[in-house]
Amino acid sequence: MFVVMKREASAEQVRGVRNAAERLGLKTKPVHGDRQVVMDLLEDGQSQSGESLGTLEGVQLLLRVSKQFKLASREFRKADTVIRLPGGVEIGGREIALIAGPCSVESLEQLLETARGVKQAGAKILRGSIFKPRTSPYDFQGIGLKGLQILEAVKEETGMLVETEVMHPDHVRQVEPFVDMLRIGSRNMHNFDLLKEAGRSEKPVILKRGLSATVNELLLAAEYILNEGNPNVVLCERGIRTFMTETRNTLDLNCVPLIKQLSHLPIIVDPSHGTGNPDLIAPLSKAGIAAGADGLMIEVHRNPKEALSDAHQQITPEKFARLVNELKPVAHAVGREL
Amino acid sequence: MFVVMKREASAEQVRGVRNAAERLGLKTKPVHGDRQVVMDLLEDGQSQSGESLGTLEGVQLLLRVSKQFKLASREFRKADTVIRLPGGVEIGGREIALIAGPCSVESLEQLLETARGVKQAGAKILRGSIFKPRTSPYDFQGIGLKGLQILEAVKEETGMLVETEVMHPDHVRQVEPFVDMLRIGSRNMHNFDLLKEAGRSEKPVILKRGLSATVNELLLAAEYILNEGNPNVVLCERGIRTFMTETRNTLDLNCVPLIKQLSHLPIIVDPSHGTGNPDLIAPLSKAGIAAGADGLMIEVHRNPKEALSDAHQQITPEKFARLVNELKPVAHAVGREL
Amino acid sequence: MFVVMKREASAEQVRGVRNAAERLGLKTKPVHGDRQVVMDLLEDGQSQSGESLGTLEGVQLLLRVSKQFKLASREFRKADTVIRLPGGVEIGGREIALIAGPCSVESLEQLLETARGVKQAGAKILRGSIFKPRTSPYDFQGIGLKGLQILEAVKEETGMLVETEVMHPDHVRQVEPFVDMLRIGSRNMHNFDLLKEAGRSEKPVILKRGLSATVNELLLAAEYILNEGNPNVVLCERGIRTFMTETRNTLDLNCVPLIKQLSHLPIIVDPSHGTGNPDLIAPLSKAGIAAGADGLMIEVHRNPKEALSDAHQQITPEKFARLVNELKPVAHAVGREL
Amino acid sequence: MFVVMKREASAEQVRGVRNAAERLGLKTKPVHGDRQVVMDLLEDGQSQSGESLGTLEGVQLLLRVSKQFKLASREFRKADTVIRLPGGVEIGGREIALIAGPCSVESLEQLLETARGVKQAGAKILRGSIFKPRTSPYDFQGIGLKGLQILEAVKEETGMLVETEVMHPDHVRQVEPFVDMLRIGSRNMHNFDLLKEAGRSEKPVILKRGLSATVNELLLAAEYILNEGNPNVVLCERGIRTFMTETRNTLDLNCVPLIKQLSHLPIIVDPSHGTGNPDLIAPLSKAGIAAGADGLMIEVHRNPKEALSDAHQQITPEKFARLVNELKPVAHAVGREL
Repeated sequence: MFVVMKREASAEQVRGVRNAAERLGLKTKPVHGDRQVVMDLLEDGQSQSGESLGTLEGVQLLLRVSKQFKLASREFRKADTVIRLPGGVEIGGREIALIAGPCSVESLEQLLETARGVKQAGAKILRGSIFKPRTSPYDFQGIGLKGLQILEAVKEETGMLVETEVMHPDHVRQVEPFVDMLRIGSRNMHNFDLLKEAGRSEKPVILKRGLSATVNELLLAAEYILNEGNPNVVLCERGIRTFMTETRNTLDLNCVPLIKQLSHLPIIVDPSHGTGNPDLIAPLSKAGIAAGADGLMIEVHRNPKEALSDAHQQITPEKFARLVNELKPVAHAVGREL
Repeated sequence: MFVVMKREASAEQVRGVRNAAERLGLKTKPVHGDRQVVMDLLEDGQSQSGESLGTLEGVQLLLRVSKQFKLASREFRKADTVIRLPGGVEIGGREIALIAGPCSVESLEQLLETARGVKQAGAKILRGSIFKPRTSPYDFQGIGLKGLQILEAVKEETGMLVETEVMHPDHVRQVEPFVDMLRIGSRNMHNFDLLKEAGRSEKPVILKRGLSATVNELLLAAEYILNEGNPNVVLCERGIRTFMTETRNTLDLNCVPLIKQLSHLPIIVDPSHGTGNPDLIAPLSKAGIAAGADGLMIEVHRNPKEALSDAHQQITPEKFARLVNELKPVAHAVGREL
Repeated sequence: MFVVMKREASAEQVRGVRNAAERLGLKTKPVHGDRQVVMDLLEDGQSQSGESLGTLEGVQLLLRVSKQFKLASREFRKADTVIRLPGGVEIGGREIALIAGPCSVESLEQLLETARGVKQAGAKILRGSIFKPRTSPYDFQGIGLKGLQILEAVKEETGMLVETEVMHPDHVRQVEPFVDMLRIGSRNMHNFDLLKEAGRSEKPVILKRGLSATVNELLLAAEYILNEGNPNVVLCERGIRTFMTETRNTLDLNCVPLIKQLSHLPIIVDPSHGTGNPDLIAPLSKAGIAAGADGLMIEVHRNPKEALSDAHQQITPEKFARLVNELKPVAHAVGREL
Repeated sequence: MFVVMKREASAEQVRGVRNAAERLGLKTKPVHGDRQVVMDLLEDGQSQSGESLGTLEGVQLLLRVSKQFKLASREFRKADTVIRLPGGVEIGGREIALIAGPCSVESLEQLLETARGVKQAGAKILRGSIFKPRTSPYDFQGIGLKGLQILEAVKEETGMLVETEVMHPDHVRQVEPFVDMLRIGSRNMHNFDLLKEAGRSEKPVILKRGLSATVNELLLAAEYILNEGNPNVVLCERGIRTFMTETRNTLDLNCVPLIKQLSHLPIIVDPSHGTGNPDLIAPLSKAGIAAGADGLMIEVHRNPKEALSDAHQQITPEKFARLVNELKPVAHAVGREL
């Protein structure tokens, strides 16, 4: 981090900053420009953050040069992280991962029928929420823990891997025995106790980007999980909130190659939430893969009209199967398998 | 809710929508316009939401006319809610409530000295976080539960009321015996288990608006608390995230009178987070009161330069005292006391 | 348009709205729901907009069902518009259009060398601005009208088609004899006199989406051009302004298939401005084509380091040639040619 | 400006940047930190911008320390600019300036009646647009040049000062003889030819902030006017575009004290466009003054229901008069006159 002093800063003010930095355990090296002094602060493992120096007299601004995330960064790990799941399924390798299934687990029949449809189309991981974060307390809040038996039965019956959302730190231990992956939703990207608990799990975690989170913030949220010892984090772009209200959210595909530069973690794309419009899911799925995503998460329901949540953006297994067929040549065109 | 059918919708499609609505427990009344059919859906306590109808064939759009929040709405309760705290302190009455104190509780001396300063200036409620939601896992995470003794000691010593942030549902029971109010921060506005737990508390709750939350979403988050039986919710505008990066956030004062129209709950303004700039706190505090806010929450630290968090946006007790003096005539100008 | 009356609206208030609507030339048909009256307003060519009715007593809200744009809409013209340019070049047909060249025309040598590079790689249309809208008056403002000779010379020498930006209504007539297409930049998307003047030109117009423009606003801006008689408008997505500052703008690829639904006009994507990061141009170019775009506009400079504007986001002709090679399989994968 | 080199930058790369900087006329002073080199670039009047250096090999980032705007900055002029208008009216002095009138000039009767109302309430400057920038080509586009006679007649009859919007560079000369101030609307904040033309006028200019413009961009737009020789610019905050759709725009009052810090130019607030809701105009007017604004621009129409544009957000002269009465104590509370 650099501290840029004001042009009119006095020698005493420069000394004041040096002393304050040293109290924080930061070594300093002042460099005298023609018009102002710039101070190089050498942070190490023991030192505290130098952010508070920004308030000292004579300081014009602080310039953070190094990234705050470490374990999530490309500098820490050059090679792509490949998440290895049971049955040889991978996320982050050459093959595009397809995660599909209903927004909510509603019944054994609903989940089983949907699972069979998406499995036949090529999906290897089944999504299905039993806890639903809902904006209104009067909307369907999810089937709850009794959904775990349904997930288990469908997993056994179809041989698919399953994932589900966790909202409360206690959910992590509750769902772990039944699922292959945990999902942390965008509303909980900054639920730090939940992130830490997921970091103590042995199951890989799908971490969805918050509605107004920067890439730096998403990677720092991943850092909470990594820092507790769980190295298996899959990032998920699912649309950000902008002035654009003609789509439910604005899918930010810029972030896919940007994350690939900054981090070794796999990144998947959720066009169902990213667009909120079933007619836009196919083109944005193709775009996501073309941009370099490692997988897709798509909401599929055997009968979207009867869905208890997100009815408007789920597609049928038949439509999903057609989509997968259209995705294959796109994946090949960018050197991936599907 | 109205369902607007497409102009080319067939009679069969209209029937399909009616049947689907009835399956959800919604009575329907189709009204035939010259160009298209519009269907009035009569929701009542037993019926489910009609959102899923939007996916049916022949439907152009759904039009939600009534608010989703009920207990938080002006229609439910015409008169302003006044939160009554110990010692005759009120929020939502004629007097402007001043909540002030450090971002984080750091030590007994720091909190006590700051508390004495802000009390003398006129603040009756002391803020101080012991749990800190931090974007980076490497930043100061708060002093934790041992801070409760500090809060208790300062409360006893100064006679001030105290509030602190809760981040995990378990925190609610842990901090309740020691504080007069709970605070739910903007990152947790959609942490629904936390909202529900706070709804079961007997302590009033300060609910901060999420970084990208609409007023409707804020009021629905309040509804989660109210719906569990806790009627004492104070809303807090603390800046939203926009393209504007020259201030830390964009304080949205439009929302103050808008909330006053829609809801009976008190609304306070936090210009410290709303601007992130100590030089902007005074003018925006005045603006907040002029816009109709019921109180202010301001970060004050006996020595901002040494603060372990938010160092750049805290002000000294002396500066706070000057601000309160400047606020008094503004409060009087809009018919309030301070 | 529908007018939804409040539940408590009186019969007199309903009559008031009907009378006011009739004064605007709008026929009305009131439909009585169980809880409130909804009024269907029949707009036709002669009637004025009914927006002002929203202020009448007893009105809860207005619901606009039909689109405001007509000539730009799919309803007006079902088939895709294909822009036919000299030499058999098309935009909006099966072949992906490649528009490439420097941000600014700087010199004959610079433009000629760049043009030869991009032509060899497959671009058929050369971009090059002679007028530059710059945020600061102290930045390079473009070479001005003397650039027209350079454009003409390079066009003649290479046989490429050329386009350039117009900023002032007078520019339209000035540049017309020298270029094959006009470009209206995002800062001028709401410069209505410029739109009208471009609408009177015989040259096709590339219309870039404004930084904070919705798709509806972009199509209404196109409507200004179409309405003056020029049917040849190419829309261009070039990134919107959001809270995301880690990329220069947020490329909104959701808008590509959304525009394809709503309009018959071709839509191209500009990943150079959309990302502002030369390393993101290739993945977002592929994503744009995969999402269904009809072409790409990419900033290419023979020596980006020496560019007088947008130096940081231009790529070399060599890098552009590699990109085109990577784009070909993606185009084929979605049934297009390149 | 500082150039921060990467840690791994070679001595040759450092030399490359120095040489490139010198070609741009920028003197350099490299300062060697422990981990990386930082280069201080000394810009002067003759040098070009160093932005292009950001693309050179070995460069990590550029850090612009000084402001790009000069004439608009507090550094250039310490004292507040006070705009002096005929009849002793001032903007930027101790007295709050009230600019009021209809969105559009519709007829002599409409303007005259409205003018008399707002004058009696205390407004000294009458607003009234004869050219209207409208999103749709099918909406009322303004009465045009024939409105100038109406403005002139009302000015003579009432003795008020008048202002009107200019959209095309030619409008500046056309309206100058008839009005006391020019207004440049938010959609034209980046219409640089219009800014330059207004900069050559002798009339003061009200410059409205663009929907997605930063304060830096607004001040650079003002710089275009100042740089042409017109020192009389009044900035106007009128709401920015954010995700918040429950109000028409988000009035950004943070910008008022921020602009006061950065610039000597007066700043006024337009709560009519900033909120789009007649019920929010009074509280936000008070908030604007409390935040330090030098004036208000408010849309007033003798009969809002019949207005040809912005019907929903205009208020009556009677309501305006009540608002002015409520504003007086707020102005006094912050040391201003009204």
